[in-house]
Amino acid sequence: MFPKNIVIKFPNGQEKEYEQGVTLEEIANSVSKSLQKKSVAGLVNKAPYDYRRKIEQHAEIELFDLGNPAGLQIMRHTAAHVLAQALKRLYGNVQLGIGPVIENGFYYDIDIENSLTINDLKLIEKEMNSIISEDLEIIREEISHKEAKELFANEPLKLELIEEIPQGQVISVYRQGEFVDLCRGPHLPSTRYLKAFKLTHVSGAYWRGDNQNKVLQRIYGVAFASKKDLEEYFHFLEEAQKRNHRKLGNELELFMFSEEAPGMPFYLANGLVIRNELESFLRKIQRFYDYQEVRTPMMMNQRLWEQSGHWDHYKENMYFSKVDDQNYALKPMNCPGHMLIFKNKRHSYRDLPIRMAEFGQVHRHEFSGALNGMLRVRTFCQDDAHLYVTPDQIEGEITSALRLVHEVYSTFGFQYEVELSTRPDDYLGSEALWDKAEGALRNVLTKLHYDYKLNEGDGAFYGPKIDIHIKDALKRSHQCATIQLDFQLPEKFDLSYIDRNNEKMRPVVIHRAVFGSIDRFLGILIEHYGGAFPVWLAPIQVKIIAVSNAVHKEYVDEITKKLKQDGIRVEEDLRDEKLGFKMREARMKKIPYVLVVGDKECNHRSVNVRKYGHEQSEEMPLDAFMAELKKKIENKG
Amino acid sequence: MFPKNIVIKFPNGQEKEYEQGVTLEEIANSVSKSLQKKSVAGLVNKAPYDYRRKIEQHAEIELFDLGNPAGLQIMRHTAAHVLAQALKRLYGNVQLGIGPVIENGFYYDIDIENSLTINDLKLIEKEMNSIISEDLEIIREEISHKEAKELFANEPLKLELIEEIPQGQVISVYRQGEFVDLCRGPHLPSTRYLKAFKLTHVSGAYWRGDNQNKVLQRIYGVAFASKKDLEEYFHFLEEAQKRNHRKLGNELELFMFSEEAPGMPFYLANGLVIRNELESFLRKIQRFYDYQEVRTPMMMNQRLWEQSGHWDHYKENMYFSKVDDQNYALKPMNCPGHMLIFKNKRHSYRDLPIRMAEFGQVHRHEFSGALNGMLRVRTFCQDDAHLYVTPDQIEGEITSALRLVHEVYSTFGFQYEVELSTRPDDYLGSEALWDKAEGALRNVLTKLHYDYKLNEGDGAFYGPKIDIHIKDALKRSHQCATIQLDFQLPEKFDLSYIDRNNEKMRPVVIHRAVFGSIDRFLGILIEHYGGAFPVWLAPIQVKIIAVSNAVHKEYVDEITKKLKQDGIRVEEDLRDEKLGFKMREARMKKIPYVLVVGDKECNHRSVNVRKYGHEQSEEMPLDAFMAELKKKIENKG
Repeated sequence: MFPKNIVIKFPNGQEKEYEQGVTLEEIANSVSKSLQKKSVAGLVNKAPYDYRRKIEQHAEIELFDLGNPAGLQIMRHTAAHVLAQALKRLYGNVQLGIGPVIENGFYYDIDIENSLTINDLKLIEKEMNSIISEDLEIIREEISHKEAKELFANEPLKLELIEEIPQGQVISVYRQGEFVDLCRGPHLPSTRYLKAFKLTHVSGAYWRGDNQNKVLQRIYGVAFASKKDLEEYFHFLEEAQKRNHRKLGNELELFMFSEEAPGMPFYLANGLVIRNELESFLRKIQRFYDYQEVRTPMMMNQRLWEQSGHWDHYKENMYFSKVDDQNYALKPMNCPGHMLIFKNKRHSYRDLPIRMAEFGQVHRHEFSGALNGMLRVRTFCQDDAHLYVTPDQIEGEITSALRLVHEVYSTFGFQYEVELSTRPDDYLGSEALWDKAEGALRNVLTKLHYDYKLNEGDGAFYGPKIDIHIKDALKRSHQCATIQLDFQLPEKFDLSYIDRNNEKMRPVVIHRAVFGSIDRFLGILIEHYGGAFPVWLAPIQVKIIAVSNAVHKEYVDEITKKLKQDGIRVEEDLRDEKLGFKMREARMKKIPYVLVVGDKECNHRSVNVRKYGHEQSEEMPLDAFMAELKKKIENKG
Repeated sequence: MFPKNIVIKFPNGQEKEYEQGVTLEEIANSVSKSLQKKSVAGLVNKAPYDYRRKIEQHAEIELFDLGNPAGLQIMRHTAAHVLAQALKRLYGNVQLGIGPVIENGFYYDIDIENSLTINDLKLIEKEMNSIISEDLEIIREEISHKEAKELFANEPLKLELIEEIPQGQVISVYRQGEFVDLCRGPHLPSTRYLKAFKLTHVSGAYWRGDNQNKVLQRIYGVAFASKKDLEEYFHFLEEAQKRNHRKLGNELELFMFSEEAPGMPFYLANGLVIRNELESFLRKIQRFYDYQEVRTPMMMNQRLWEQSGHWDHYKENMYFSKVDDQNYALKPMNCPGHMLIFKNKRHSYRDLPIRMAEFGQVHRHEFSGALNGMLRVRTFCQDDAHLYVTPDQIEGEITSALRLVHEVYSTFGFQYEVELSTRPDDYLGSEALWDKAEGALRNVLTKLHYDYKLNEGDGAFYGPKIDIHIKDALKRSHQCATIQLDFQLPEKFDLSYIDRNNEKMRPVVIHRAVFGSIDRFLGILIEHYGGAFPVWLAPIQVKIIAVSNAVHKEYVDEITKKLKQDGIRVEEDLRDEKLGFKMREARMKKIPYVLVVGDKECNHRSVNVRKYGHEQSEEMPLDAFMAELKKKIENKG
């Protein structure tokens, strides 16, 4: 038979004929040498495809290089195979489990007698580098079930996997040199394409995650498109580790945890100063936006949670108690309590919008393995608010809620991204109301010039929402604020107001949080600032050190008293320690201002100011320093 | 036989002989006619005794008049008999239950067919007044069990009581005219001695408080030594009712309660403003006293409460939950959490004293019948602190704690009384430490010139304490602050610090609360101020009303914005209502300042200020008003 031609359609819509059996690499080469060189794999009819695998039918194609996340993922998968090959070369008796891709890298689970150490990892890396420089071509083969069982006769773990593949289904394996692995692929064309990797650690893992099974050794590695990316990754890790909020929380004495209440933070004095400042800050802003602040009980009767729907949808995450033989639940959310407050009084349209806020301590169960310092806890303070509005007020209230969010986030220097989620298929409530509400949300986002991401169909069944993701100093993204419309809660609690025509109407409820969880926000702030808080948040704002306690104590006391009277958080250090020791300690505690006071300062009624992060200190008149400090605190600088 | 003489010993120690069978009245008469006239009963050998009952043995005596609480109590008891007699006269078929004395008065439980109303009470009062004017002598008789059963043959409820008196015991009855009642006494000499009474209401009550028994009718009355006292009592009731914190809480929209969480307050916006002000106020003062503020979880593992002793001594009042199959308890107190924080770090003597404060939300069960608005709740915020001190620091810390208490209480204009309670018989801890601590407490109280009450033996087994009772505007006493030493908690949690000689030492813990419960303190404040809060606490500090919305709105808006920017809680009233209506409403809401703004004020850039409780208003330049207002708020005037 003569080879026939097939039609290849490119992402830009262009179509071109090739001979049947053409590969992605050949197609890339037909476009340009450089495209051929940088690409490593692609999609054929939307399915991942090896660079050198033959294409037999007409197809739409797309090419990946390592700058593409899918390309990088393929490279990480190949890295796992190279690791397995190196292990086979180095240790005769090694049984292979599975070797998947994970975030930033890969792992391989293996059964081997020796317990591997960090030194072994160095050796393995060396062998992996040999395999890379051997530039072994990576070849896909398709074999039968029977052939697969023969091929992996000495690999009991692989045999187990093969057993689970339905009979008759074609099984693919990938070969590179002497090594072969059971694998769906795709993979890089050859081992040389693996650009930059590092093995990071080894740990135990149950075979297939089942604690009835044998414990295997899991070797972890990371892989990137370039040495530079790899280095940046380790630099990021190092920086993240330096900024780790649990580490800093301990060093700066911000908070602690106890075995007596895992996942429930104990705020130490320094941490509580920050938390209280965050609360006061938002409270003050909310007052300007005409919010009223309320406070509702920590637990309420179970029937209330049944009415609100939490019982049906959330009880797995709730904690319970008993009061007078009635079942109570600790609140996981503040909504039902706020609904009761709304219902406590008759409302006219003139009263709306009502903006009801609470710094509400909620309890939500998390698995102990999921707990992570302040970022994942079992109890936190939510800066919750519920806005009760008429449908016509939605647009105005969303606008002002977004303004408020912006005001808060920009204070911390956070960039943020906005996402709009619209009605899902199973939405409840009138179409007209949904239309009106979604229209209002789009309008607001457009008017405020937000370049938002639209998640069609991702809203809750009870209403559309806007989520806001902040980016911290390490460019990590955290979802914090949310503005969520709710057409159902007003139904469930039969909320009403009397309109202009004296008719009973149903308000719309908007759930709104800015910090989200103050505890988590504090965790994010710790990492964002690396513990070096701006002065308005700093637990200790000023440390005062005497050059000689004997001589300068009086002046230190005077300054301390003066600053304290102005509400400054100040501490004197009059211990019998060397000046340098005290300075170093203040720097370790990341205190924004250290004042050193000696003869000169006493005589001049001045202070010698060293700002955190500055090498040089500066003498300033005491009054000028105080004025600058107070202004900075006021401006939250 | 000739009558023999007996020796009567007077309270002043004087002794005098009388003939056997002398009565208290005769003894009083032997001293002076006026003493005889005003006395009504007394003590014979420390036991209450009728005025006209014969004294047969040598005895110590004491005489009561109605100015004496014991005398008043006897009168109230007689009032119950007069009530019963009136009932017997008015309604043939009435079975008597019991008729005891209660605070301010008395009641009688009766079984009668007709359901008594307030009109019946008027009739009964009239009959009681007849009985009083008949001046019936009240005579004690002692009879046998058998005689008693015969005498009360037609009174089944009395028979039930007689059945419970041990056979052979002498039974006393009291007669007045045709009426006789089973009674231990003592009573007034005659019905004329009953000076001033009023029946107040009637309600149902189970016979002997057992809900298996029949429901009787209970008639309540009050009785006082004079008509004036009676009137004052009703005036006090009226005033207390006007100031009732539940009524005002509702009218001023301070808080609400819900069936979904009885005893657990919901703070409405106005109430939370006050609560937040109270917290900020104390937080600021505590910072000056070098407290550190912490925050500990709402619930912790049960084993912690076992360690602290709460499990053994307090579990009936605690609420429980489960976390990961472990038993948890909601904290009824903050101590154990604070102990964990102390233990989180090694401490040197240089660190002490450590003053650890928390605004801690605690949960403590109360019977639903005991709940009373904010005064008795199931969850409240305790302004708790634990001071960790060396024994030598006790005196200094008690001094500063008392100073702090004084500073807080005098801000509200509270007078207060101090009580010192010393070691009970079963005290734990070393005698030397108790000696030192009690000595320190006495020293401090003496040095600070407190005229304190000493309650010997009334301290807790774990340490001596100082309790502080405030007196509100109606002279009612409320125990709020407490300063309590604890030698046991440091043992239970094995707390230690390293002393100057590098030895491990046990600190002393001082528990301290100023408000006690912020919620209860708020309830007290509401009644103390009758809802008319000083401006620093007032939920709305300033209300601004335009004479004409059309003309003056702009200026009202301008003033509102200006005040708001200065942190003043201000509201404008631009509704289409008459000026007088708006003024009246602002007065009902007890808003400290109402500003009225018309042409004159717009032209002058002034405001017309009417202060709450003043009849006259006054025109003031806007700036002058703002300056005065801000100064007043700052001074908490």
